[in-house]
Amino acid sequence: MNVYAAPVRDLRFVLEEMLAHRSLSLPGFEEATPDLVEAVLEEAAKLAGDVWAPLNGTGDRQGAKRQTDGSVTTPEGFAAAYHAYVEGGWNGIGVSESLGGQNLPEVVASAVQEMLHGANMALGLCPMLTAGAIEALAHHGSNALKAIYLPKLVEGTWTGTMNLTEPQAGSDLSKVRTKAVPEGEHYRISGQKIYITWGEHDAAENIIHLVLARKPDAPEGNKGISLFLVPKFLVNDDGSLGERNDVTCASIEHKLGIHGSPTCTLSFGENGGAVGYLVGEEGRGLNHMFTMMNEARHKVGIQGIGVAERACQHALAYANDRTQGRSPKQRGGSECTISDHFDVRRMLLSMRARTDALRALALYCAGQLDIARHAESEAERQAAQACADVLIPIVKSFSTDQAVDIASMGVQVHGGMGYVEETGAAQLLRDARIAPIYEGTNGIQALDLAGRKLQRDGGAALSALIDDVHKTAETLRGEASLASMGSALAAGADDLRVAMALVLEQGRDPEHGPDAVQAYATPLLNLAGHVLCAWQMGIAALHAQQAVKGGSDEPFYRTKLCSAEFAIHQWLPVGRAHRAVIEAGWHCFSQFDSHLAH
Amino acid sequence: MNVYAAPVRDLRFVLEEMLAHRSLSLPGFEEATPDLVEAVLEEAAKLAGDVWAPLNGTGDRQGAKRQTDGSVTTPEGFAAAYHAYVEGGWNGIGVSESLGGQNLPEVVASAVQEMLHGANMALGLCPMLTAGAIEALAHHGSNALKAIYLPKLVEGTWTGTMNLTEPQAGSDLSKVRTKAVPEGEHYRISGQKIYITWGEHDAAENIIHLVLARKPDAPEGNKGISLFLVPKFLVNDDGSLGERNDVTCASIEHKLGIHGSPTCTLSFGENGGAVGYLVGEEGRGLNHMFTMMNEARHKVGIQGIGVAERACQHALAYANDRTQGRSPKQRGGSECTISDHFDVRRMLLSMRARTDALRALALYCAGQLDIARHAESEAERQAAQACADVLIPIVKSFSTDQAVDIASMGVQVHGGMGYVEETGAAQLLRDARIAPIYEGTNGIQALDLAGRKLQRDGGAALSALIDDVHKTAETLRGEASLASMGSALAAGADDLRVAMALVLEQGRDPEHGPDAVQAYATPLLNLAGHVLCAWQMGIAALHAQQAVKGGSDEPFYRTKLCSAEFAIHQWLPVGRAHRAVIEAGWHCFSQFDSHLAH
Repeated sequence: MNVYAAPVRDLRFVLEEMLAHRSLSLPGFEEATPDLVEAVLEEAAKLAGDVWAPLNGTGDRQGAKRQTDGSVTTPEGFAAAYHAYVEGGWNGIGVSESLGGQNLPEVVASAVQEMLHGANMALGLCPMLTAGAIEALAHHGSNALKAIYLPKLVEGTWTGTMNLTEPQAGSDLSKVRTKAVPEGEHYRISGQKIYITWGEHDAAENIIHLVLARKPDAPEGNKGISLFLVPKFLVNDDGSLGERNDVTCASIEHKLGIHGSPTCTLSFGENGGAVGYLVGEEGRGLNHMFTMMNEARHKVGIQGIGVAERACQHALAYANDRTQGRSPKQRGGSECTISDHFDVRRMLLSMRARTDALRALALYCAGQLDIARHAESEAERQAAQACADVLIPIVKSFSTDQAVDIASMGVQVHGGMGYVEETGAAQLLRDARIAPIYEGTNGIQALDLAGRKLQRDGGAALSALIDDVHKTAETLRGEASLASMGSALAAGADDLRVAMALVLEQGRDPEHGPDAVQAYATPLLNLAGHVLCAWQMGIAALHAQQAVKGGSDEPFYRTKLCSAEFAIHQWLPVGRAHRAVIEAGWHCFSQFDSHLAH
Repeated sequence: MNVYAAPVRDLRFVLEEMLAHRSLSLPGFEEATPDLVEAVLEEAAKLAGDVWAPLNGTGDRQGAKRQTDGSVTTPEGFAAAYHAYVEGGWNGIGVSESLGGQNLPEVVASAVQEMLHGANMALGLCPMLTAGAIEALAHHGSNALKAIYLPKLVEGTWTGTMNLTEPQAGSDLSKVRTKAVPEGEHYRISGQKIYITWGEHDAAENIIHLVLARKPDAPEGNKGISLFLVPKFLVNDDGSLGERNDVTCASIEHKLGIHGSPTCTLSFGENGGAVGYLVGEEGRGLNHMFTMMNEARHKVGIQGIGVAERACQHALAYANDRTQGRSPKQRGGSECTISDHFDVRRMLLSMRARTDALRALALYCAGQLDIARHAESEAERQAAQACADVLIPIVKSFSTDQAVDIASMGVQVHGGMGYVEETGAAQLLRDARIAPIYEGTNGIQALDLAGRKLQRDGGAALSALIDDVHKTAETLRGEASLASMGSALAAGADDLRVAMALVLEQGRDPEHGPDAVQAYATPLLNLAGHVLCAWQMGIAALHAQQAVKGGSDEPFYRTKLCSAEFAIHQWLPVGRAHRAVIEAGWHCFSQFDSHLAH
C-alpha cells in the first residue's frame, strides 16, 4: 500500500513562518527567492510522491540482489527512479555553484531530502552517501581529483560511498587495517570493508569509493589512517571510463530492513591492489571523514523524520478508515472510525506532534548550518557553527530513536494488520531501525554531545540555546491561551540547565569524569532532545496562534496547535524525567559486572 | 546464533525467595514440594535450552508454509520438538489432576512457559492457544464434550485454537458474522475467521477450533454470539478420528515475525457447513471467551518476558565478547569489551533490570491466581482475584511494550551486527512486536484497567497494591544502603495514587467520563507498570541484601542489587512522569480532528 504525500505544507510552515526564510537573506543565496523555493518543494514533492514512493514496497520485497558475477541488481524501477532524480538536477541542489550545484540553502536541501527519504529510504541512501563523498572531496581533494570526479558526483551520474568499517573496526576506527601501498602517483589498496551502503549497484555508470586505509609505514592508531579515493572504473585522462579497478562486492547483507539498499562487503586488492588516490593529508583520514560526518549525521536525522512522517500518514489513513466500536454518547454514540477513540487519538497525536517537532528542530539546525557558512560576520558564523555542532548529535540520535518508536506506534495503530507485511506499516519499522545505528550509533552521538561538544566550550553553545528556549517560554506566557505551555517549557529548560551543569561538573573529575560522562550521556541527550523539540513546538504554536487570530480558518493551524499542546504537555514531561535519572547518579554502573551477570 | 539458557536461577529467586513458595502451601498443592518444583524447572530448562531454542532461527528463516492442498508445513524440527514437549508431559503441568493434568501451581506453569517462549516464541504459541481451549472447555463445555476432547487437549496430542477475529470484527467482536445453523445435536458453521494462530499445521493429529458464531435467529451485537467447538477431524464415538470437517486453511499471513507460527485464515463451511458443537450457553459466547482471555493475557505478558530475557542474554554475550575502544584510565585504560563502556552498560542494565522486574511482577500475579483459586477462605480468594484482575492488563501490556523496547535495545547493543538478520537480535524484535497487538491490543488492556477494573471497585484493588508498595518502601528505608530506594518507591506510589484518583474522579463525569478515561488509560497503565515493577525490585533488593549480609558471595545477588538500583533510580523516574501527563488533561484530544490532519 502506498500512502505518502510529501508534506509540503508542513515544510513550508517551518521554512516560511517558523524560520521566516532567514537563510534566503544570507549572502550567496540572492537567487533563491521564496517563489523559487516554493517551486522547488512542489517539484520535489512530485518526484518523491509519484516516482519514488510507489517503489518503496516493491523495493522491500525484491531487495537488492548480488549476482554470481559479483554485480548487484537493484529492485525493479530503482535505477529509473534514480535517473529521474539525476535528470531533474536534484543531486546538486545543496551544492555550491562553483562545484556545479544549484546552490540552494541547506534548509531547502534538507526539506527535499526529507521528502525523498519519506518516499523511499532505501533509494534515498544512494544520494546521501554521494553527498558525503562530494563533501569530503570538495574540502580535502586536490584540484586534479576534484576536476575529474566532482562534476560527475555532483550531477549524480556517478555515485559515492564511504568505506570506514572493517570487522574489527566499527565504532573504534583506530583499528582500521586496510593497506595502501604507494605506487608512483597513486596507491594500491587492499583489504576488506563491511557495511558499505550502495557499495555496488546497477544505477550509475561509476562508483567512487572513499576508503580509510594505512600506509605500510604508518603509525598505529588514528594518526596512521589516511583517506583514499578508489573508483570502481578507472577514469581516463579524457574523462571516459577505463578498466575495472580491483574492487569487488564479496557479498551483500541480509538485513532487517532497507532491503532495496545494497549493503556490501567490498574486497579491495584481491588481484594486485586497487588503484587509489590520496585525499587530503596523509594521516588525517579520520579528521577528513569527521568534518563530513557531522553533516552526514544531520542527514540521517532527516531520514528518520522522513520515515516518521510516512508512518504518521500511514497510521492516520488507516485510523480514519477503519470502523470499529462506537464513539462515547456525548459525541454521538454511533459507529465510528478508530481515530475517534481517544486512546487511538493519543497515538496519532503523539506520532504527529513528535514528527512535527523533530522536523522543526532539524530544519532549525540546517538554518544554523546556512548561517555558519554564509553569514557576513565571523562572530555570527562561529556562533551558528557552535549551535549546529551541539544540535547535530541531538538531531541525529533523537530523531532516529523517535522515528523507530513512531514507526512502531504506527504498527500498533494498525492492530493485527500492522503485523502483516502487505500493509506496509511493518516495513517502516524495519527500515527505520537502522538509523540509530549507522553514521555513529546513537550512543556515540550522546558521547559526542556530553563528552566532546559540551566539555570543549563548557556548555556555552547549549546554554545559549537554553536562553532561547526561555525567551520563547516568556513569549508564550504573554498569550493567555498559550501561557501554560510557556510555564511547562520554562520548567523543561531549567531541568536541562541543571542536568547540563551536573554533567559538566562531574565530567571534570580527573578520576571518574570519563565514566560519569558515559553514564549520563544518553539521558542528557534525551532531555535536551525533548526540551529543544518542545521549544520548537512552542514557536510553532505562536505562529499558528497568530494565523488563527489573523482570521485564518485553515485546519492546518488548528492541528498545529493540538500538536504543540501534545508535545509540551504530554511528551515533554517524560523527557524532563531524565533530569532525575541524571541526578540519581551512576553507582549501579560501576557495581555491575556484566561478565558475572550470567 | 543460538544464545539462550533458561534463567532457572532467576526464576528460582522469584519463586523461592521473593514469593517464598507461598503457592505450594495452598490446599490442593500438597504434592508440589520445593524439590519437585526445582526438578521441574531444571527439566523444563533442558527442553527449552536444548530442544526448542536451537530451532528458533531456522524456524524464522523457513517459516510455516501452506501447501497447495491447503495443508500447512511447520519448519524443520518443530513437529518433533512439539512431540518432545507432549511426551514429557509438559502440556498439562498447570492443569488440575481431575482433568488429567499435573496440577502444579500457576507460578510454576508460568515459569515453565517463560522458558519455552524465550526458547522459541513461535512454537510456544501452539500450546498457549491449546491452554485457552482447555480452559474454555473445562469451564463451559458439557460433560460429553469434555469427555471426548479434554484428555487429548490436556495431553497435547490434539491442539486448540481460538477463532474470534473476522475482517470487520477485531477489537469490536460484536460484529462477528460467522453463522451457526442448528442441525440435530450439532450445528453447521460457515464463515471466515482471520489471524488464527496455529489454525492449521502438521504437528498434531487433530486441531480443535473454538469458534465465535451466531445462530440465524440470534440478536445483533454481543448477545447474539455463541461459542462452538469445531474439530478439524470429526471424532467417532470410540474416540478415533473420523472424516475431515468442513474447515480449511485459505491462506497464511506473511508477517513481520513469529514466522514459525502459522497465522491462518480459516474458511468454515465451504462445502455445506462445518460440524460444530455449542460450548456453554447460547448467547454467552463472548463471556465464555473473556473468562479465559484474562489468563491468556497473562500468558502473553509471560511470553514478552521470555523474549526479553533472550534479548538480554543475546546482548550480554555480544557485549562481553566484542572488543572496541578503551576503558577510562582509572579502570585500566586498556582495550576493553563494549560492556565496559558505561553507555553500553546502561543498555545492558536497563534490559536486565526491566526483564527482572517484569518477571517478578508477572509471577507475583500468577501467585495471586493460585491464591484466588485455592486459598481456603473466600475472602482471601476474592481479594487475590481482584488483585489479579487489576494486574493482568498491566502484566500483558506493560511486559509486551517493554519487551519490544528491550529487544530493540538488544539490536542497538549489537551495532551494525544487530541489523543483520544472521545475528538473531533482529528476529527477537520482529517476534516481540506482535505481543502488544494480539490477545487484545495494549490500548484495549489500558481501557480494561482504567475503564473497567478501576471503575468497578472504585480503585480498591489497586489501592491495596499501592499500600503494599508503601510497606515495601518503609522496609527499604529501614536498611541504610537501600533507604534511597525506599524514598523513590514511596514517591512513585504517591504519584500512582494521585493519578488513579484523578482518573476515577473524571471518569465519573456523566458527559466527559468515557473520553477522559480513554485519554488517560495508557499513561495510567504506564505509571502503574513502572511503580509496581519498581516495587518488585524493591522486594528483590531486600532479599538480595539479606543474602549478602548473610555471607553469600554469589555474584547473582550483587547483580540483583544493581538491577534493583537501576529499576528504581534510573527507570522509575520516567514512569513517574506519567502523573504529569495525566494532570495535563486531554484538551488537545478533543480539539484534534484527525480527518483534517492531512
